[in-house]
Amino acid sequence: MEAEVTEPDFDKGQGLIPAVVQDAATGEVLMVAYMNRLSWHKTLETGIATFWSRSRSTLWVKGETSGHVQKVHDIFIDCDNDTVLLKVEQVGGAACHTGYRSCFYRRISRDGDEIVGVKVFRPEEVYK
Amino acid sequence: MEAEVTEPDFDKGQGLIPAVVQDAATGEVLMVAYMNRLSWHKTLETGIATFWSRSRSTLWVKGETSGHVQKVHDIFIDCDNDTVLLKVEQVGGAACHTGYRSCFYRRISRDGDEIVGVKVFRPEEVYK
Repeated sequence: MEAEVTEPDFDKGQGLIPAVVQDAATGEVLMVAYMNRLSWHKTLETGIATFWSRSRSTLWVKGETSGHVQKVHDIFIDCDNDTVLLKVEQVGGAACHTGYRSCFYRRISRDGDEIVGVKVFRPEEVYK
Repeated sequence: MEAEVTEPDFDKGQGLIPAVVQDAATGEVLMVAYMNRLSWHKTLETGIATFWSRSRSTLWVKGETSGHVQKVHDIFIDCDNDTVLLKVEQVGGAACHTGYRSCFYRRISRDGDEIVGVKVFRPEEVYK
């Protein structure tokens, strides 16, 4: 008998839910991406964060090009089942295609933007 | 002269962007809500997290009913300008209307769901 696992409510967002990805070790929020039902089940099955690319309309194993995959340690679901939170180990140390550890590398303030992120790799050396 | 502040790209998500809310002190991810342009500017102006309620189609000052507002310490924007991250002080200690500190109080696993969150208040005592 299968244990009962809550299925996210994919209908609310036209088949997609946002997935927040957080570094399991440091708690840093790395990125937000989207999942459809297929990528949700792939993530559960494989333990590797798998999303739906809205721009390419395709299943997207994060890091399949760069090798910087995300090993999923824990998954949480929110109170109304329409958002999930993944705690991951970020292979390669950077989640962002720009080479920053987190996609949220710019801080906004009334005085303007400021780059506060840590750059881990140079994109031109990773995406060839 | 006004300093240049990056404006999120509200067009991609039909006028809305997801906002991840993180506890500034502990790093715990508390919730995800949505902002339109109006709530974004209200948040910048007031320093109190203000969202757009998709279910009620109205501006939503988080905590206006319970008193559990979120004082914004820092705001970050992601690489493609379509998601923001707020680091906040959660007044009252709980972000979730269920009384849990975080909306992500359930952990998902192949063996089923498990409640792992910390309950801070009893909803029936806060929402009267």
